[in-house]
Amino acid sequence: MSESGNEKAQKTQSPIIQSRTSRRGFLSGAAAVGGTLATAGLIRPAAAQGAPENQPPNVADWSRYLGEGVDARPYGTPSEFESHVVRRNVAWLTASTESSINFTPLHNLDGIITPNGLCFERHHSGIAEVNPADFRLMINGLVDKPLIFTMDDIKRFPRTSKAYFLECAANSGMEWRGAQLNGCQFTHGMIHCVMYTGVPLRYILEEAGVKTGAKWIMPEGGDASGMNRSIPLEKALDDCMLAFAMNGEALRPEQGYPLRLVVPGWEGNMWVKWLRRIEVGDQPWHAREETSKYTDLMEDGRARRFTWAMDCKSVVTNPSPQAPLLHKGRTVLTGLAWSGRGTVDRVDVTLDGGRNWRPARIDGPSFDKALHRFYYEFDWNGEPLLVQSRAVDSTGYLQPTKDELRAVRGTNSIYHNNGIQTWHIRENGEVENVEVS
Amino acid sequence: MSESGNEKAQKTQSPIIQSRTSRRGFLSGAAAVGGTLATAGLIRPAAAQGAPENQPPNVADWSRYLGEGVDARPYGTPSEFESHVVRRNVAWLTASTESSINFTPLHNLDGIITPNGLCFERHHSGIAEVNPADFRLMINGLVDKPLIFTMDDIKRFPRTSKAYFLECAANSGMEWRGAQLNGCQFTHGMIHCVMYTGVPLRYILEEAGVKTGAKWIMPEGGDASGMNRSIPLEKALDDCMLAFAMNGEALRPEQGYPLRLVVPGWEGNMWVKWLRRIEVGDQPWHAREETSKYTDLMEDGRARRFTWAMDCKSVVTNPSPQAPLLHKGRTVLTGLAWSGRGTVDRVDVTLDGGRNWRPARIDGPSFDKALHRFYYEFDWNGEPLLVQSRAVDSTGYLQPTKDELRAVRGTNSIYHNNGIQTWHIRENGEVENVEVS
Repeated sequence: MSESGNEKAQKTQSPIIQSRTSRRGFLSGAAAVGGTLATAGLIRPAAAQGAPENQPPNVADWSRYLGEGVDARPYGTPSEFESHVVRRNVAWLTASTESSINFTPLHNLDGIITPNGLCFERHHSGIAEVNPADFRLMINGLVDKPLIFTMDDIKRFPRTSKAYFLECAANSGMEWRGAQLNGCQFTHGMIHCVMYTGVPLRYILEEAGVKTGAKWIMPEGGDASGMNRSIPLEKALDDCMLAFAMNGEALRPEQGYPLRLVVPGWEGNMWVKWLRRIEVGDQPWHAREETSKYTDLMEDGRARRFTWAMDCKSVVTNPSPQAPLLHKGRTVLTGLAWSGRGTVDRVDVTLDGGRNWRPARIDGPSFDKALHRFYYEFDWNGEPLLVQSRAVDSTGYLQPTKDELRAVRGTNSIYHNNGIQTWHIRENGEVENVEVS
Repeated sequence: MSESGNEKAQKTQSPIIQSRTSRRGFLSGAAAVGGTLATAGLIRPAAAQGAPENQPPNVADWSRYLGEGVDARPYGTPSEFESHVVRRNVAWLTASTESSINFTPLHNLDGIITPNGLCFERHHSGIAEVNPADFRLMINGLVDKPLIFTMDDIKRFPRTSKAYFLECAANSGMEWRGAQLNGCQFTHGMIHCVMYTGVPLRYILEEAGVKTGAKWIMPEGGDASGMNRSIPLEKALDDCMLAFAMNGEALRPEQGYPLRLVVPGWEGNMWVKWLRRIEVGDQPWHAREETSKYTDLMEDGRARRFTWAMDCKSVVTNPSPQAPLLHKGRTVLTGLAWSGRGTVDRVDVTLDGGRNWRPARIDGPSFDKALHRFYYEFDWNGEPLLVQSRAVDSTGYLQPTKDELRAVRGTNSIYHNNGIQTWHIRENGEVENVEVS
């Protein structure tokens, strides 16, 4: 995320609930949803609808016509009724689309897998459209024999598949100074979780032969930004992967096709896309993206560096500003939790701004350094709510409040905001981004 | 699969290797791949390529230009270089595209997740394009109170996410009488595996109140075919789901959007799409799709009925006819294994037509009734191979040979062919579908 957006961030004011300003016009999605708030109702007995016994309800005519056949879409696409489920950007946040971001629509998703077409993007020089036949990966530096690999070469090493979340270090960055963006797509949508298939990086490094004294690697991207970062050799030999597939198929162009580095649990910009070179060295390279950017400016003017791991975090995705409550009565609250240091052991939910916490139900697989899905079912009586979630990871770390983060790191930061998010649910079911203090 | 295709099936002949006939022209994919067989080579030292130390190989110009920005594709699509990775049908197999099949390109995929755009389709009356606002699900029959649900109603029940394979009962059906179709996409591609999110069916049945004496349910589809099947109540209350999402996002239209039944481990046509009604009864309905079709005609003219569970099965996806071997030396063989009765405990691979079996490496999560990915790494010396895989599931059942199946069930069958598949790898790396006996 560029700092230009931050200049527009406002100083928060003091009332207990600090509402985000509504003058920004980018939230067309939420407005459209708001229009449906009047509908709803409870589950109705079939008899009340005039449906005769053993006859399905007569509401549709699609049973009277043949549908489209199997030839029409050799690569399938979503229903036209899901055309609102897309990645979205924030126009004023960055100066150009080639060095910009879009956001995963978390409020439209369920489970822990992000479909490939909805994985958020972050580019520094746009999407390189790489022909895999021309692709080469070079390993050089402190190695016994520098090597150049084709994609075919890489696919001849033993493979593995693992689900990992990828979170931009700047995810929720706009929220450091108070509630800003109205929708979990924008506050938390720089994250996705897919099943990667690739080759453990250690196999490739072993092929080249890492020399004694080597302590770091520097992956470098093949796009115009030439993104590079310094990564400790220990991490490279532990769980880093050279991934060529996501959710079963080839990487998408915007995710680094044909090859990206996977650095489980660590900030997204280290997962170098369109990977063309890995240099092995004995010290970090102090690249632009680990000095000028992707460092955490503290209150005293010093900057934290090499803050790689993404700390334990969670967010309620429904209800949220783009997904208001439509009904009183039985209600499914759901959200996501994750930790760059392991699995998520527990998620708590509060409906009253933190006075009372109750355990949520974690559902589905609990993979190391992957998204976890949680649910909390309750009866909504129509009163306003202050909804929050907080996660505890397998190291015992408890997700902090934003104020706790600010007490330690000040308010200059953009990166690594893993503070607790608050949604204010109004009596009419609409939801806004607020802070409680 | 319609029987019309079967009429074109040939009687197999006797030699040890029975090659599929090559006169059918549908395999354009494999031909295209065949053209690249001459390329390849081993991993080359960087110096031999003239690459100066610390300089990446000079093979690409995509680092010299800005790429496409983040606005262009709010819902992403694959790289243009992956345009050959699509579902394919077999033109002569069925009379119309509305009552037809296409096949998942298993040889292009890795891991255990099938991306939504590549999940095979089977329609009986084409794709119903259902507006979720008009959707209704009715529960009637032997229940205390017949109910009609909207999609909103259904989403107010507790949800869960599970990965399951879905296999058409007719998958590999063309191979009953000998090697026919040249490519695992066509022999085994009526299967996919996604992470479903939905509501356990038992919650909905409990809401309606199942009457004493009820033993069966009949789900019914809202498309023009009105697909319906009888399912034992015990299964319905066990692990059946009303699914509204696959791999995180809404179901695709061709997969039953907005709601389909998930019947884990059981044949695909029971997973009723565009679900509009579930009737509860005390005996099966003997619907068309469980009498005239989806029964197994035996040698004596009798038919096996209600053969719901998909037996343990596996297939080598690479190498395979659409994915020839490109190199001698280190080679990654990979494939998929599954069982409708549990998990897969073991997969064995043979390179010599079954004389010697070696254990494959099962990689990734092992979910109940889901695909399992296996790998077998070996050095290929360029000699011809007869490659097979065989799986053992958590009940101890061993995948049989096709001849073992025929000895019990004769050669009239179309459905439930879980026999061992053989690929013949030629010296030039090309692969053909054969049978060994």
